Amino acid sequence: MAPAVIRKISDSTVRRLSLYLRALEDLGQEGSETVSSETLSARVGTTAAQVRKDLSALGSFGKRGLGYPVASLLDRVRDALGLDRTWRVALVGAGRIGSALHAYPNFGDRGFRIVSVLDRRPGRVGDVWGGVTIRGVEELEDVIRTERIEILILAVPPEAAQDIATRAAGAGVRGILNFAPVRLRVPEDVAVNEVNLTLELEAISHAIRRRIPDPREGTP
Amino acid sequence: MAPAVIRKISDSTVRRLSLYLRALEDLGQEGSETVSSETLSARVGTTAAQVRKDLSALGSFGKRGLGYPVASLLDRVRDALGLDRTWRVALVGAGRIGSALHAYPNFGDRGFRIVSVLDRRPGRVGDVWGGVTIRGVEELEDVIRTERIEILILAVPPEAAQDIATRAAGAGVRGILNFAPVRLRVPEDVAVNEVNLTLELEAISHAIRRRIPDPREGTP
Repeated sequence: MAPAVIRKISDSTVRRLSLYLRALEDLGQEGSETVSSETLSARVGTTAAQVRKDLSALGSFGKRGLGYPVASLLDRVRDALGLDRTWRVALVGAGRIGSALHAYPNFGDRGFRIVSVLDRRPGRVGDVWGGVTIRGVEELEDVIRTERIEILILAVPPEAAQDIATRAAGAGVRGILNFAPVRLRVPEDVAVNEVNLTLELEAISHAIRRRIPDPREGTP
Repeated sequence: MAPAVIRKISDSTVRRLSLYLRALEDLGQEGSETVSSETLSARVGTTAAQVRKDLSALGSFGKRGLGYPVASLLDRVRDALGLDRTWRVALVGAGRIGSALHAYPNFGDRGFRIVSVLDRRPGRVGDVWGGVTIRGVEELEDVIRTERIEILILAVPPEAAQDIATRAAGAGVRGILNFAPVRLRVPEDVAVNEVNLTLELEAISHAIRRRIPDPREGTP
């Protein structure tokens, strides 16, 4: 199948597409053949108008009054998210966060295969994680080329992150999921997504602060 | 200090406020007393117009031609993010992700103190993590009340998440950072932030897909 032309889709739309994907998979398993924008919006916590707008960015299908066909909508969403294929992923950093990410079951289910793990600590190199032998980070370029790595998961200390990102970009990596709390500079043709866990907590403390004051707050 | 009135700020603005905070801290350490919207925008990867718009939501200060005073801007951003105080946090789930989160150094730096850890596995209960003894999840309500827990970090299997969230909300928790891949239903006065790591990878594969095709793609 020729890849569909994908228009520029906003980050927030991409996030909702991921949620639609999960809802559509559930609907498919429940035996639904079609779904209305109302049902889909209720499952992901948005409005029906937002669903229609988001899905129109994938091309117009879905007939007024009949809803969207679940199976073909699933295909289109998977396509748009780049999930119609397997991605070869390397994990750099075999510490606590790296270990948690390596054990994260959903990556494999979604076609993200961690085929290589690298670390800078000699004590870690040579360990075997899920059939993959941990290699030294000095082999990064070699691993990227021979293992045809497309996406790097970066779970290293902040001071090491930029150097590894620069080397990985030079060796042909196309996307980086960065857990190091530092903003990476990479060439424009490399996609970077930063996961900052403190920022997620800050969004909560902001949201709490905005709500009605808690009677407990202010007491010592 | 009386808490400032905080207007409704969009999620994407809150995320940028977190980035401004980091940039302002760096600028403060470098000895800068003022900063222009241009400098700040370059540090966080946005536009100067966006910076001015975001910061105007915190009240108007910053003088045309003089830039923003770093110290007082820092105070305002911290206020808006709810970081002018310490938050008492409980971690539920002492597995791999829980362990990585517990070791995450930045939480403490930002005023998020993990004062309690709970797990459902008898083999984990009684272990000591950073001076905190892991307690059984059946004690959740008791822990929330006696330890005055405000924020819960949920790192449990998806099938356990909703029940724990419901119990925690009933016991007075005000925010939940959810790592379980499931959408939680909680009362409106509880803030929830969902961290879905697969979704972060999907955003990258989408971004790669949108870029110029890689010559390697399509080869077996």
